Amino acid sequence: MARRWIMSAVPTLTADIETAAHFGGEGTGVTRLAWSPELRQVQEWLTDQLVELGLEVELDGAGNLIGRWQAGSGKPIAVGSHLDTVPSGGRYDGALGVLSGLQAIRLLKERGFEPSRPLWLISFMDEEGARFGAALFGSRAFVGKDLRELGERRDANGISLKEAMSELGFDFERVPSARRVDELAGYLELHIEQGPVLETEGIEIGIVTGIVGLIGFRARFVGEANHAGTTPMRLRRDALCGAATAVLALRDAGRARDDITTNVGIISAEPGGFNVVPGAAEFTIDVRSATEDGYATLEPLVRETLDRIAAEQNLELELSEAYRLEPLPLAPELIDVLERAAGAEGATSMRMPSGAGHDAMEVGRHVPAGMLFVPSRKGISHSPEEFTEPDHCELGARVLARALEKLLA
Amino acid sequence: MARRWIMSAVPTLTADIETAAHFGGEGTGVTRLAWSPELRQVQEWLTDQLVELGLEVELDGAGNLIGRWQAGSGKPIAVGSHLDTVPSGGRYDGALGVLSGLQAIRLLKERGFEPSRPLWLISFMDEEGARFGAALFGSRAFVGKDLRELGERRDANGISLKEAMSELGFDFERVPSARRVDELAGYLELHIEQGPVLETEGIEIGIVTGIVGLIGFRARFVGEANHAGTTPMRLRRDALCGAATAVLALRDAGRARDDITTNVGIISAEPGGFNVVPGAAEFTIDVRSATEDGYATLEPLVRETLDRIAAEQNLELELSEAYRLEPLPLAPELIDVLERAAGAEGATSMRMPSGAGHDAMEVGRHVPAGMLFVPSRKGISHSPEEFTEPDHCELGARVLARALEKLLA
Repeated sequence: MARRWIMSAVPTLTADIETAAHFGGEGTGVTRLAWSPELRQVQEWLTDQLVELGLEVELDGAGNLIGRWQAGSGKPIAVGSHLDTVPSGGRYDGALGVLSGLQAIRLLKERGFEPSRPLWLISFMDEEGARFGAALFGSRAFVGKDLRELGERRDANGISLKEAMSELGFDFERVPSARRVDELAGYLELHIEQGPVLETEGIEIGIVTGIVGLIGFRARFVGEANHAGTTPMRLRRDALCGAATAVLALRDAGRARDDITTNVGIISAEPGGFNVVPGAAEFTIDVRSATEDGYATLEPLVRETLDRIAAEQNLELELSEAYRLEPLPLAPELIDVLERAAGAEGATSMRMPSGAGHDAMEVGRHVPAGMLFVPSRKGISHSPEEFTEPDHCELGARVLARALEKLLA
Repeated sequence: MARRWIMSAVPTLTADIETAAHFGGEGTGVTRLAWSPELRQVQEWLTDQLVELGLEVELDGAGNLIGRWQAGSGKPIAVGSHLDTVPSGGRYDGALGVLSGLQAIRLLKERGFEPSRPLWLISFMDEEGARFGAALFGSRAFVGKDLRELGERRDANGISLKEAMSELGFDFERVPSARRVDELAGYLELHIEQGPVLETEGIEIGIVTGIVGLIGFRARFVGEANHAGTTPMRLRRDALCGAATAVLALRDAGRARDDITTNVGIISAEPGGFNVVPGAAEFTIDVRSATEDGYATLEPLVRETLDRIAAEQNLELELSEAYRLEPLPLAPELIDVLERAAGAEGATSMRMPSGAGHDAMEVGRHVPAGMLFVPSRKGISHSPEEFTEPDHCELGARVLARALEKLLA
């Protein structure tokens, strides 16, 4: 396979980000879907970098790339993230976590640091799930989840996950062999925030306290469709008015507590005409909380709000759950280590939850996990406009290195 | 052309409704689009009925069928409506107005009534506009409006209005010859209410005081799309929250005045994802009033409401007008005549506006016009479920006959 990357003279993180972005970077933004040639190419480039640093590199049965710095004794500490992207995604989401891990290893090697236990760098397969709807595939396999039902999932071209794996020489039946989480002592992940908090607050490093739990609902209010010209206001059962009331009530509930967020992202009215009073209105609800306490309020909040509106406005309500994920508190001892590492690097930091899911959400249910964030310009992610200042990237890698130094001492 | 209608033994209005519904009644509901064979067939059937009653029948250059009871002297009084329908429409919308006019003529002839002036029965072409988006085509031609821009309008099969007319032996260039409104002394139209007011109030006849003016708007709020998990509530500019506020504010404004109605019938959020804070929200607004005073408040109401929301919620607003029609007050003397005719027939009646447009809206801008409504079951129209009790149909025809008796005395 032709190797098309640009070799930079001095291997800095900033140069690595530039180099990695060329794999799948031909169009707008970066596109490296799961099991694509572009993803394999960036993995091969990463392999070369790791080998050059003296690490052993393995591609496991689930497509995860694992570089091992064999040192000391006992269970390893892993640092990881992912190299796959959404279509037309950015350069930083996932990639920065892997590349800052690489940079941290370089820094530790440069300093002549000798770890007391092994260090692994993991690039998980298919965190985004953009191709097969199989998000967190690699990290789920790594923790031993049963993924057999995903084999027949097909991408937009009708290719099944099994077939896509087979094309790259992988065997779907061997995915369970990727279970390795029990070998680890702990896990760290650096990621871009994908939100505006750090930038807005002017803070360089976010110390993640937990990853949000979330519940998705599909809601439908049913009233009665009528001609808007001939049906007096008082005789209407306007389903969209119910949905509008819900949009605002959920927003207000989200504003009323610091530890929850709410969102209505999709909405439609039926039958849909300028002069037709909506007889039905459908909308989606996404509610999140990183705390156990906040998470426990989410479902009652949604159900009680919508039931009340249905009763008040004489509408019927259909409500179904679309997805659900429990929150994951991150390990307090790793929160402390990361916070001190940031301080030692002279970085400003703040504790904050992660509002999006990450590979750490899978790994962290089995071993202590810690995460740190660097700022995202305007909070933009999953877009070619995704950007993090080079200084913030380099600082993040140094904080990561310092935390690893502590954990591997 | 084969004549396929079922001849009823006794020509009652109820039998006529049944018979007329067979033309275009092969599928669900009744489908008689403009310039279709089905519409021509029902016109031919109507021609036979009118000729049998001794009327002269003419098909004018715009496809309007006009039956003339030549009697007395002076300008004629016309009664009319339309025989075209929406796709899968009902049996009553339009057809009942024409057939109750036919029945009224029968009743007057039966009684040996001799008019002091001519009486015309008009079945206007294409009131609905379902095929070419050329609503009120026949009545607009009848009042002399310039319709030249409609000739190249095409239906769903790519056939132009010109071509469709030509297929039935009409010449689009001759449409202006249909201008006849100046010959009339007045116009009456019976129609189904297409709303729930008469049924809800338990009233048999509605005396229409005016036809609503209406304005349609397309509105778009623009905020900022963000990840709903990573963007704190206080940092969002959620365009759908703006739209939801508008939906409720417009509803409340519509409820606050008896003489206006408001409706948001179509809505969408962009980019549209469970976990994406809407960066834009589009919706339609339809506002109506039958009074000059109410109509004057409509545009300021919409603009001020949306401007205020945009300012309060830090959103950009794009607002454009989609359509506009001035209200038409109906002739006070004809309101009186119709009200007395209802009373003389022992019918309960109430004055009310028409929330929908009708052929009377065109004709009534040139000559005094009056309208009466009969109840629509559940207010349903433009549907196979459209229904008016036979007794209400017959009563409506008798009220119409009595009003004509007065006007033609």
